[in-house]
This record gives sequence, C-alpha cells and structure tokens, in this order.
Amino acid sequence: MTAPVRITGARITPVAFVDPPLLNTVGVHQPYALRAIIQLDTDGGLVGLGETYADTAHLTRLEAAAEAIVGLDVFALGSMRAAIEATLDTLSVTGGDGVAGMITTASTTDRVFSPFEVACLDVQGKATGRPVSDLLGGAVRDAVPFSAYLFYKWAGHPGAEADSWGEALDPEGLVRQARKMIAEYGFGAIKVKGGVFPPDEEIAGIKALRAAFPDLPLRLDPNAAWTVDTSIRVASELNGIVEYLEDPTPGLDGMAEVAREAKMPLATNMCVVAFDHLEPAVRKNSVGVVLSDHHYWGGLQRSRLLAGICDTFGFGLSMHSNSHLGISLAAMVHLAAATPNLTYACDTHWPWKSEDVIEPGAIGFVDGAVPVPTSPGLGVEIDEDALAALHQQYLDCGIRDRDDTGYMKSIDATFENTSPRW
Amino acid sequence: MTAPVRITGARITPVAFVDPPLLNTVGVHQPYALRAIIQLDTDGGLVGLGETYADTAHLTRLEAAAEAIVGLDVFALGSMRAAIEATLDTLSVTGGDGVAGMITTASTTDRVFSPFEVACLDVQGKATGRPVSDLLGGAVRDAVPFSAYLFYKWAGHPGAEADSWGEALDPEGLVRQARKMIAEYGFGAIKVKGGVFPPDEEIAGIKALRAAFPDLPLRLDPNAAWTVDTSIRVASELNGIVEYLEDPTPGLDGMAEVAREAKMPLATNMCVVAFDHLEPAVRKNSVGVVLSDHHYWGGLQRSRLLAGICDTFGFGLSMHSNSHLGISLAAMVHLAAATPNLTYACDTHWPWKSEDVIEPGAIGFVDGAVPVPTSPGLGVEIDEDALAALHQQYLDCGIRDRDDTGYMKSIDATFENTSPRW
Repeated sequence: MTAPVRITGARITPVAFVDPPLLNTVGVHQPYALRAIIQLDTDGGLVGLGETYADTAHLTRLEAAAEAIVGLDVFALGSMRAAIEATLDTLSVTGGDGVAGMITTASTTDRVFSPFEVACLDVQGKATGRPVSDLLGGAVRDAVPFSAYLFYKWAGHPGAEADSWGEALDPEGLVRQARKMIAEYGFGAIKVKGGVFPPDEEIAGIKALRAAFPDLPLRLDPNAAWTVDTSIRVASELNGIVEYLEDPTPGLDGMAEVAREAKMPLATNMCVVAFDHLEPAVRKNSVGVVLSDHHYWGGLQRSRLLAGICDTFGFGLSMHSNSHLGISLAAMVHLAAATPNLTYACDTHWPWKSEDVIEPGAIGFVDGAVPVPTSPGLGVEIDEDALAALHQQYLDCGIRDRDDTGYMKSIDATFENTSPRW
Repeated sequence: MTAPVRITGARITPVAFVDPPLLNTVGVHQPYALRAIIQLDTDGGLVGLGETYADTAHLTRLEAAAEAIVGLDVFALGSMRAAIEATLDTLSVTGGDGVAGMITTASTTDRVFSPFEVACLDVQGKATGRPVSDLLGGAVRDAVPFSAYLFYKWAGHPGAEADSWGEALDPEGLVRQARKMIAEYGFGAIKVKGGVFPPDEEIAGIKALRAAFPDLPLRLDPNAAWTVDTSIRVASELNGIVEYLEDPTPGLDGMAEVAREAKMPLATNMCVVAFDHLEPAVRKNSVGVVLSDHHYWGGLQRSRLLAGICDTFGFGLSMHSNSHLGISLAAMVHLAAATPNLTYACDTHWPWKSEDVIEPGAIGFVDGAVPVPTSPGLGVEIDEDALAALHQQYLDCGIRDRDDTGYMKSIDATFENTSPRW
C-alpha cells in the first residue's frame, strides 16, 4: 500500500494582465486579459499549479470543482473528472467560456477539469521527482517550437498611448510586426489572425509575409469569417503559400465543402473542440488538422488522447492558444514535448504580454522554441508578489468577462459580430 | 534536473506451461502454452516485469528490441517505441504472432514494444512508490470483473490422462464446465469459445447455459467461422440471449453486413487489432465493441488510447485474452481498473493454467473479480525457481511456435483450417 497525496483544497485567484488591442473577427482584445490561477494544496505540503479562464461563470464552476475534489489523491484523475462532472451537473450557471464567443461548444467538464488535472500532474511530478513530460510518456524533443502569432492591431487602446508594437492594419504593418517578433523570439513559422479586413486585404498581407520571409511556413486564421465560396476562393489564391488554412468558414459541413476544393489542409479550433465533434468530423471529412488546447480538451492526458486520435484517423495536429501566462506555457510545452505527432509549431500569445505570475527565468524562448523544463513537475513556481499585484489589477480593472465584441462596440457602435462576414 | 532510471538490459526467458486441449476453429491448444518473461534491469537495481508471446520470430524481435533500448530512461516511452520501431525495420524475420493465426495483422512494433512498456511502468511504479494503475490515471474500481471463459475440449490430450476439467463437447459438457468454473472463481459472466461445432450445436450450448444461468451475461466467439448469412441467422437465434456476438465472420466488410442485421452489438478482436483498423471500422460501421489486449495494442498507455477512441467513437470496450501467466494478469488488471469505460467483464484464460512464474498470493480472484494490487508497480514478483522450472519445461517440450492447426492435424489428418467454415 502506497501513501496517497491527498488534496486539501485549492486557492483560485483571478488575475488581469495588460493586453494590447489585438483585432479579430468578433472584435478586439480588451485592455486586460483575465486568467484564473489555481494553487492546489495537498496534505504533504506540495502545491500544484494550474491556469485557466477567469470569466465569472467559469470561476463559479472552478470553486465548486475545488470543493468536490477535496480528499482525492492527486493520482486519481479518472475519479476526479467524474467527481467534477457530477458537481457541475448540480450547478445552474451559464456562459463563461472565456474565449469571446469563438469556442462555445467545448465540454464544460473538460474546461473545468483541465486546470485541476494540470495542477495534479504538477504535484505528481514534484512528489516523484519527475518533470510533467515524463508523466505523459516522456519528452521526444528537447524544445518545443512556436509560431510568431501576428495580429492586426491599433497602435494602442483608444485614449491610451501607443504600445511598443505599434499599429498593424495593412500588409506593411504585418511585415513590420513579424520582423520585430522574429527578431526578439526567433520564431520559425508565422500565423496571422485574420477575419478583420476583407479577404483580399488579408491575402495581400499573407503574400507580403511570403515575400519578406520566403522560407517560413505561413498560416491564416479568419475565425470562420468567410462563406464557403469565399473560403474556396481564398484557398485557391493561397495555394502553395500557407501550410494550412485555419477555420475559414463555420461548421463541420461548411468546412467539408471547402476541404473538398482546397489544396491545403484545413485546420480547426472552432468546429472540433470536444471529443463529441471527432466522429462527425471523420465521417464528413471536414478537417485535416486539429489544433489542440489542453484548457478545453480536459487537461494534458486527454490532450494526449486527442493526439492519439489525430494520429489514428490521419489528422495533423497543431496547438491553439488564447492569451495566457507562464503556467499555461509550461503545461503546453510539457504536453507538446511528449506528443510525437505534434509536428507543427504551436501557437502562443506569449509575445503580447508583459506581466506574469511566475518567478522569472524558469521558462522562455530560445530560437523560437521553449526548452522543456527538466525539474520536477511543471518547472515553474508562483511569484506571490506578482500574483497579488495581478489580482489587484483584476479587482481594479473592472473586467469580469472576456468580451471582445462589447469592447469593440463601445469604440465603434456600428460593429456587428457576424459569421460569416464575407 | 531529475535523475533518470536507465535501462541496462533485459533478460528474456521463454517458458512453457501445461495447457489443456482447448478447441477452437483453427485447431486445438498444444500440451504446452508458451510465454516470454521479460525482466528489465535498470541502473538503480529496480527490475521491471513484462510478459508476452514466445514464438521464435517474436523472441528474435524481443532480443533486438532489448538491445535497442539500453540506456533509455524508463519514463522515455515515446522515444523507446520509436527506437524499437527503427530496430525492427532492420530485421528480416517473419511470422511469430503467437496467436495461432487468429490475429495476424496487429502491429509488429506494438506487439514487441508492449512487454517493455509494461516493464517500464512496473519500474516507474517501484521508483515512485505508486501502483501502475496510478500511472494510468488512477483506478476507478477496486476490483476488475472477469468472465468464465468456456471451451469445448477433450477430456485430455491424446495419449495422456484426462485433466481435472474433463470433456466438454456438447451443451451438457459446457454447462458442467461452467458450473465448476463459477463455483471455483465466482465469475458473473460467461464467454464461450465457439467455431468448433456446426452453429446449431453451439446455439444449443448457449441456450443450455442461458437455462442454467438465467442471470449471467453470455457471449459467443466463433473466431470468424461463419459466413455472413450464417452469422445473421445465428444472431437472430441468439437475439436477447447474448450481450454481444464476437467475430462471427471474417473482415470489416463482412462484419458490417452482419452488423446491419444483428440486434446485438458485434465485438471483435480479429478485424480491429491495430490502430490502422479503427478508421475503416468507423467508416464501415463494422463493429460495436472492441476487445482490447495490451499485448498487441502496444502496452498499457496505448491501450488507454484505444479505450479513449472507443469512448469517443461510441464503441463498447471489453478485453481479450490469450493463455497467460500472472504478470499479464496484473497488467490487465491495472489497465482495466484505470479505464472508466471498460464496462464489460474481461476475458481470461486464467482458470485453465496450473503453473506460474510469479510468487503466489499477490494476485487472484475473489467473487469473479481480481482486486487491484495497491503496492508499487505491477504488484507481482518473479519466483526464480518457478521461472527456471518453466523455462526448463520450455526447453524440454520441444514446442517453439504456437500451432493449434498443426497439432490438430497431427491428431486428425483430415482437419482443415478454413474461415468461414459454415
């Protein structure tokens, strides 16, 4: 009989960090991005870390889940997910997906379970002296490559000073942004968040990037801003230029129509965002690449399951990102390191943030990739002062739910969130 | 930086244990069943155990794999599988599937990797003080139920004395065998290995079991002995009597034809035995239940992947068995305990064997189920004297490859292995 490591509670701290005015098809990033930081306490004194969305309804669910798992062993992940699912069934909160209406059909259970699972793996690693990647089958690469994640953006939030990135509202702006980001981080692939301007302008942006960076893989993600016909036309224009086209149009059926005509694979983090979506995606041949995200796929072990499903059913595998802090980056890196078929550079919003809750120096970029931490657990620790400061910022900023559309409408009253837009 | 637990070598010992004359559609079990026992040595002195087939070609592959993984950390399972795959690509051996021609298209890499993966998880558990079930997501049940696995059989091998089970060649014999096995083990479900007699005789056998055990779930597995038409007729006759019908007919297309007509789910461990088979099985709607088997699905972690795929794509999940010893039983129990959707009683040949290589008392049956070991690792240890004795039996018995058909032909020269037979 071995001694369990029992959960005694979880401290859930919502934080806010400064976020630039990044444009997307549903609106624009608010001045602060929200995250919830989980500090999972155990009877032996080990603390595990997790990071997730911080929208109001999600926080309510997290608190309920934290109570439901008290007393469980950190290795009892199957039982823990079942306990959380049972508790969520008793709640009557709605909304709180934390992704601004772009990913709304993911599993609530998996989204709530995820940060606790990551925190448990962190404790498991600390208790056994192994990095989290070892608990996921072992790292098959020493460093995980990420892409430069470009956004159309204003110079600064309305009424505020310009940020250090400046404006990017045309092809020249995108190329300037890419040069700065690649100079600072060394990224070897480029992703553009599109769906902001009419397709021809974004095609011109991609072509300008191809001219400026002839050797780098390129991707474009309009977040389902286009009709099927527009998507097919863009796919034809970008044939041979992008390695994949991400969520050109809404829904499994629309994506399947586009996929039949497009020469490049279609990727998604919108129409396949839960295990329930995989069977219809297979039967309809809707997508070629799935962008995983442990925050809504139910943690790292279930993201490995997703990876295995992609391998089995012939899907490529890449990784999605929302605005995130260092705990999420560490979790993403351990997962990606231990996933043999995660062969695309992962997405990250990392360059867009200037604040964090973790002690500096534990994790970072070298030549566009993040070396996989080799210390026990996730390999990152909380900076309590920084956590307190970003929590205070959360209290002060007044934002309680991510709302890119509402913020955009407060600036441009004529804005409408329509999909497809063109 | 945490200290790795490096593999220094593996001792691979073929053993033979007494096996009764169990009949199946390809022939009859030989007087001895073969297994290979893996003792994986590591630099810290911890030893991990694995168990697999022992056919000649398989032993050659195991020896090559054992060399290929020297120096790897026992947590580096992804790298280990890749190293074994690369090594196997350099070998030019054929055959050696160890399952008498009934499962011939499983992945050679997964079949060879499996016992090393299990042994690595055993070491991981010993190194971290956790049972293997904890390394697979944690046990969701304290004990794993198994089924009574009935066989038509002769009283004894030709020229030898009758064994303790006696003859079972008709419905009365099956019922007698079931009563004895259930009295000794407490099983709460019954599986019959069919494909031996014309379908009507086996239908009569199942109906006799239903009359004798009105409350127990029943299954029939003819190992693809029937045509599509025969299968549909048997399915109709057994409607409401068996919980599933296992591999009535060969191939994904034939199974799909039967599945369209049969009221009960079809199960398989013949047409879906590798990850490559899952996509066509989904597209063709060939089966309703997959019988997992970590020995050819690539170990315990990949069997969890299979379980997750079954959950995702709406397949039921049960567990297949070949003749096996205690190390395999322990591995099967840890896996089943940690698999939430493994909701059928598992198959096991356990009652048919009278010898083993493990120290007695660590694992066994209570009320038809095996309590999940809670000590570190698999929870079983080698009895070196028993191992030596069964290895000597291997050397003495002269059997080097499982060959149910050849053995049957040596007894009945007119026997032909044909599928479908009826």
